[in-house]
Amino acid sequence: MQLRNFKTSKERREALEKETKSSLKHIGHFSFSEEQVGNRNIENLIGAAQVPLGVAGPLQVKSEKLKVKSFFIPLATTEGALVASVSRGCKAVNESGGVITHAFRVGTTRGPVFFTGSLEKTNLLFAWIKEHEDVLKEEAAMTSSHVRLTKIRIKSIANYVFVRFYFDTGDAMGMNMVTIATEQIAKRIEEETGISCLSVAGNFDIDKKPAALNFIENRGWKVWAEAVITKDVLQTILKTTAEQMFEVWLGKCMLGSAMSGSFGFNAHYANIISAVFIATGQDAAHVVEGSMGITSVRSLKNGDLYVSIYLPALMIGTVGGGTGLPTQKEALELMGVFGTGRVEEFAHKVGGAVLAGELSLLASLSEGSLAKSHERLGRAKKV
Amino acid sequence: MQLRNFKTSKERREALEKETKSSLKHIGHFSFSEEQVGNRNIENLIGAAQVPLGVAGPLQVKSEKLKVKSFFIPLATTEGALVASVSRGCKAVNESGGVITHAFRVGTTRGPVFFTGSLEKTNLLFAWIKEHEDVLKEEAAMTSSHVRLTKIRIKSIANYVFVRFYFDTGDAMGMNMVTIATEQIAKRIEEETGISCLSVAGNFDIDKKPAALNFIENRGWKVWAEAVITKDVLQTILKTTAEQMFEVWLGKCMLGSAMSGSFGFNAHYANIISAVFIATGQDAAHVVEGSMGITSVRSLKNGDLYVSIYLPALMIGTVGGGTGLPTQKEALELMGVFGTGRVEEFAHKVGGAVLAGELSLLASLSEGSLAKSHERLGRAKKV
Amino acid sequence: MQLRNFKTSKERREALEKETKSSLKHIGHFSFSEEQVGNRNIENLIGAAQVPLGVAGPLQVKSEKLKVKSFFIPLATTEGALVASVSRGCKAVNESGGVITHAFRVGTTRGPVFFTGSLEKTNLLFAWIKEHEDVLKEEAAMTSSHVRLTKIRIKSIANYVFVRFYFDTGDAMGMNMVTIATEQIAKRIEEETGISCLSVAGNFDIDKKPAALNFIENRGWKVWAEAVITKDVLQTILKTTAEQMFEVWLGKCMLGSAMSGSFGFNAHYANIISAVFIATGQDAAHVVEGSMGITSVRSLKNGDLYVSIYLPALMIGTVGGGTGLPTQKEALELMGVFGTGRVEEFAHKVGGAVLAGELSLLASLSEGSLAKSHERLGRAKKV
Amino acid sequence: MQLRNFKTSKERREALEKETKSSLKHIGHFSFSEEQVGNRNIENLIGAAQVPLGVAGPLQVKSEKLKVKSFFIPLATTEGALVASVSRGCKAVNESGGVITHAFRVGTTRGPVFFTGSLEKTNLLFAWIKEHEDVLKEEAAMTSSHVRLTKIRIKSIANYVFVRFYFDTGDAMGMNMVTIATEQIAKRIEEETGISCLSVAGNFDIDKKPAALNFIENRGWKVWAEAVITKDVLQTILKTTAEQMFEVWLGKCMLGSAMSGSFGFNAHYANIISAVFIATGQDAAHVVEGSMGITSVRSLKNGDLYVSIYLPALMIGTVGGGTGLPTQKEALELMGVFGTGRVEEFAHKVGGAVLAGELSLLASLSEGSLAKSHERLGRAKKV
Repeated sequence: MQLRNFKTSKERREALEKETKSSLKHIGHFSFSEEQVGNRNIENLIGAAQVPLGVAGPLQVKSEKLKVKSFFIPLATTEGALVASVSRGCKAVNESGGVITHAFRVGTTRGPVFFTGSLEKTNLLFAWIKEHEDVLKEEAAMTSSHVRLTKIRIKSIANYVFVRFYFDTGDAMGMNMVTIATEQIAKRIEEETGISCLSVAGNFDIDKKPAALNFIENRGWKVWAEAVITKDVLQTILKTTAEQMFEVWLGKCMLGSAMSGSFGFNAHYANIISAVFIATGQDAAHVVEGSMGITSVRSLKNGDLYVSIYLPALMIGTVGGGTGLPTQKEALELMGVFGTGRVEEFAHKVGGAVLAGELSLLASLSEGSLAKSHERLGRAKKV
Repeated sequence: MQLRNFKTSKERREALEKETKSSLKHIGHFSFSEEQVGNRNIENLIGAAQVPLGVAGPLQVKSEKLKVKSFFIPLATTEGALVASVSRGCKAVNESGGVITHAFRVGTTRGPVFFTGSLEKTNLLFAWIKEHEDVLKEEAAMTSSHVRLTKIRIKSIANYVFVRFYFDTGDAMGMNMVTIATEQIAKRIEEETGISCLSVAGNFDIDKKPAALNFIENRGWKVWAEAVITKDVLQTILKTTAEQMFEVWLGKCMLGSAMSGSFGFNAHYANIISAVFIATGQDAAHVVEGSMGITSVRSLKNGDLYVSIYLPALMIGTVGGGTGLPTQKEALELMGVFGTGRVEEFAHKVGGAVLAGELSLLASLSEGSLAKSHERLGRAKKV
Repeated sequence: MQLRNFKTSKERREALEKETKSSLKHIGHFSFSEEQVGNRNIENLIGAAQVPLGVAGPLQVKSEKLKVKSFFIPLATTEGALVASVSRGCKAVNESGGVITHAFRVGTTRGPVFFTGSLEKTNLLFAWIKEHEDVLKEEAAMTSSHVRLTKIRIKSIANYVFVRFYFDTGDAMGMNMVTIATEQIAKRIEEETGISCLSVAGNFDIDKKPAALNFIENRGWKVWAEAVITKDVLQTILKTTAEQMFEVWLGKCMLGSAMSGSFGFNAHYANIISAVFIATGQDAAHVVEGSMGITSVRSLKNGDLYVSIYLPALMIGTVGGGTGLPTQKEALELMGVFGTGRVEEFAHKVGGAVLAGELSLLASLSEGSLAKSHERLGRAKKV
Repeated sequence: MQLRNFKTSKERREALEKETKSSLKHIGHFSFSEEQVGNRNIENLIGAAQVPLGVAGPLQVKSEKLKVKSFFIPLATTEGALVASVSRGCKAVNESGGVITHAFRVGTTRGPVFFTGSLEKTNLLFAWIKEHEDVLKEEAAMTSSHVRLTKIRIKSIANYVFVRFYFDTGDAMGMNMVTIATEQIAKRIEEETGISCLSVAGNFDIDKKPAALNFIENRGWKVWAEAVITKDVLQTILKTTAEQMFEVWLGKCMLGSAMSGSFGFNAHYANIISAVFIATGQDAAHVVEGSMGITSVRSLKNGDLYVSIYLPALMIGTVGGGTGLPTQKEALELMGVFGTGRVEEFAHKVGGAVLAGELSLLASLSEGSLAKSHERLGRAKKV
């Protein structure tokens, strides 16, 4: 059976139902425009996966930078207890005065690999790029008005050169844009130096793989969030104390992660990131980058708790990719960040959501109630 | 506004639409049972994220182990070109005779951290656990008939002990099961030794964070797949040669990933893993584990190409979690792996899908056509 | 000029002095037997590097396990302030009641790589090795009465198999022994399975390279040490407090190392390890393994400080290698651990020495006096 | 017994001999000036460790950059076969036309950690440093005419700031200089911002610990070397072929190291680095940094072999530290790189030496003769 012979999702579904003797009724139940999606977001469309979408929050904002007082967090997930947990985190933050966030654009990266064959040519290529950053910026700019080459990092072994190009892609996550721009750049480099680009994507991006490079040199957006949870809130809402929280954090997020050789010194960033990403049309494979980062917890003298999160490599957009699809667009709008000029705010809000999630899980663990909350909320009966 | 005061997704949607001045029409368009989902998979439900679902394949199977001749690959994604790319990979594999796969259950892990406070107690705890594996297995078995403690690994610094429990969770991914089992185990350990469990999840699992521990000691399932692509297929379908493929692989997947300090010596496992996971109701945060692994490529004497993939930590299930939701269940059925007794086959098939995806992307890169294929398929107009 | 044409170190020195117009007078000033050394430890001998040797300690021992009350620590180094720093650490430990240590033999590893070419043969090889551990143990035993194969760990990608053999090498570090044993084992595997060993050392050992594998699965000896430093000693000898020490440790050894993507969550293990290794004839390249590990510090309620170290991969011996050379033997004797039956005690003592060094440096840093102590002790005048 | 009560090494030796009932005759046999060493390089001096010193080479140089035609390599080691192996590598390189090298000064780093306590102060500190790089350069310059602050990298989590200062330290390795300079800088920052420096060394240097940061962002010197070994030389001297060498390299240095989660994609850099470091008075603990790096091997069409090495973080000096001690100075002179103005040349030569060592070991492994060569050269009788 050749799926590409069919024109519509309906035809494909029917053929597949026959071929695999299965029903695809629910997959066929969707409300987006088949034509638009099929031309931009997917091929061989047969319908849609429906991922349950819940809402956590609102989460109150303390700093004036963000210009909103609070926001909701749409979470698409099938893991019971997650939305409840983030919601509890929001409540604890809110009753303690709100979250402070900060975000910094690092840029979407593309990292081609050039095979030079010798030290001499490696040095030549290195020098040429260093001296022609402006030329390369112009090449990049020619491919799209939305992409701007902002930084270049070059590394080499003797006979290979790896270049990490950082781009400002506006409100888009922009992997496709930067690939096209990098192809243009690479072509120019090849023409000028006679050295061939082995692959426009040489894993020096490094895209969608766990890597120290992204952890250390960052990718996409760097995001921080912090809150001070009052002693009273710790006791009444989170059923724990600052000291217990600190001990769990130190044993789990620091020593446990050290023992495991991890780039994730946190409790569960990936849970919140993946649920927000699926809800809002981000590339779910970038959960890999989003799972990295360091949570910091301190027990303050007055019994309050300082908690903060740090996302070194958040890959997000508010235009392009899957952000324009109907439910995804609605989720972004619900969060107040759909469209142009909103990506920085989105970064802040993801940071706030992650903090709420960390706070709540660490409290559950310090209360010893992790499985209990799962049991009650998600799996009433014995699995 | 308190979301938990509303009883139905409709009420929540309407309240949110009013509060945030947004429309949630499409999110409200879903076909699953609100009650069931809301009790098991999510809280504060307002509807569903619709993720476009395409199908790649069929992918032909060469080895007799898998007992099927071919299978389809459901992919939920918003990234244009992905389904087309995997489909092309399937075609190349099929015309070369099919894929060979292998899978091995490692087990779902939970890794609590115990604070002992001293070397003496650390040694005591270590010894007690070593001598009472049977006791702990019984404790685990008491929590569910579907969970079986299979292996214990203990690590310690002087005053903390980290234990990595491996469980056979049958056809379920089973994180909740193993959390409950580990709580039971930890309780017994606490009672017997007087040493307190600081956190039932001590990041020695290590769940949903990039980590050497999962890369080296594995988690969930280990999966391998391989195929030999004929010289003719390389030329006609993949527009490349074995030698070119090898050079791209060496420069990108090996040297580029080495340069980046990565646990992902591959082209884009995470893309296929995330799309299959969302389609089939897996926990999308486990894309982190699924993004790791090593692709191996060899240029054979006769011009053919050997290609293989290795997934060190694939976290999957065919029952439980989101697998029973309507579209997810349909996707699993489409793939031929829904329900009990199918998880090993599912592991094999995911391995096959990943191989098809790797083959196709590496070919695109060696042909220099990565962005071109994106341009044509997904972004006809300048972004 | 061909160095191998000369018979004695004197002839080589004279030829080199002439050729390079340099003086080698001091290098020619040594007291070991040229013949013995030249046949076992080095080729093209021209003399000796004289590395200044100082002594720290004695360090008092608290636990009865070690069967000594105190010991001295010989340190060969050219870095001013190191011996003084370790000595200060010893004094602080002594006046607080002594150090408690623990050591566990993991084994010296050799990790060959086999090229199988296919999943089928990989599975075959895996199964054969699993079923013939006894056979392989016998093969190993045939190569030396001092080497015993104790554990086998197998990992594979589809077409390569990596095996990590762990050996008990008695009181020797034993890399040469285990290489010979592994060659014998590999030969047998090749004969039985027809699968060729690509390299007897396949970097799955992994010898003398920084690697998560050694950090996580250990190598050589695992060693722990701990001490409780009294509030008074902190104040009078270390000029700091438990709380300050804790803050420096948390910021530097935990968060700083996390930020750096390190396997060394410590202050300066490598300084002590390298100085002890050179003094006692260990393989100095194993400083790489010895630099890894986790220091743990806690501020206790009464103002005392708990401090511990953990060495995951200490590669040492008290016989063989350079241990029998005159000064090296003397240093081992000074430490009370020369010869057979002493390696476990040596492991304990190295652990104690590392703890003393950690304690002292962390105190210097928390006192803000790191450079000051260097200035005073090592570099009185402006460099 | 209090070692600090003694004035001379002789007194200390005698007291220790009595106390430990050991002989320290050979340790007492040395030729350096006790006073000078005891004031600069060590405390509690009792004598010297004599490490056998052999010479490999000469190694011929192909590129004109280095301005020498060949050089010798002094190696202080107790590991039999190492000097012979490097010598064989030199011979193979020489008969193939020589080695090409390249070196680039990255700078010695010091990385303090500041505790800010909040995002607000973190942003303030970040901004202040960014805007006052010139001020900090002046502060650094005030501490020594030999130290120059060249680059600043700032990273932060929400409540901690880590700064990586890079310094040009001339011909010295310069850790003490940069510590003093960083203390001065940190003091100024504290005064200007009111934010306290928690530790002048915050493991963001990151000194003497295996770390992705040094691998990725480099430290000290970056060094490359390459050679093309002719088919004939491969056959006659190295007893192997280009293809066999390539296969061993791919299986061991790439796939094996990938499997091990290593920053060392090489055969044995640490062996050569440690032996050169001890011979020439470098800080032996910097073997940790020197063990990292990537070897690259290619089988050329005509049967020749391209081989190259890359050292990302070589910490060396030709003045200061242990370089001025008698035997160490002689070894540097023998190598032609003692004193001011020679450190870049030293970097080149270390690169060449490492290449010779890599070539020879990979050849031994591909010939299957690793243990055999050990057996013959170092351990004639069964161990």
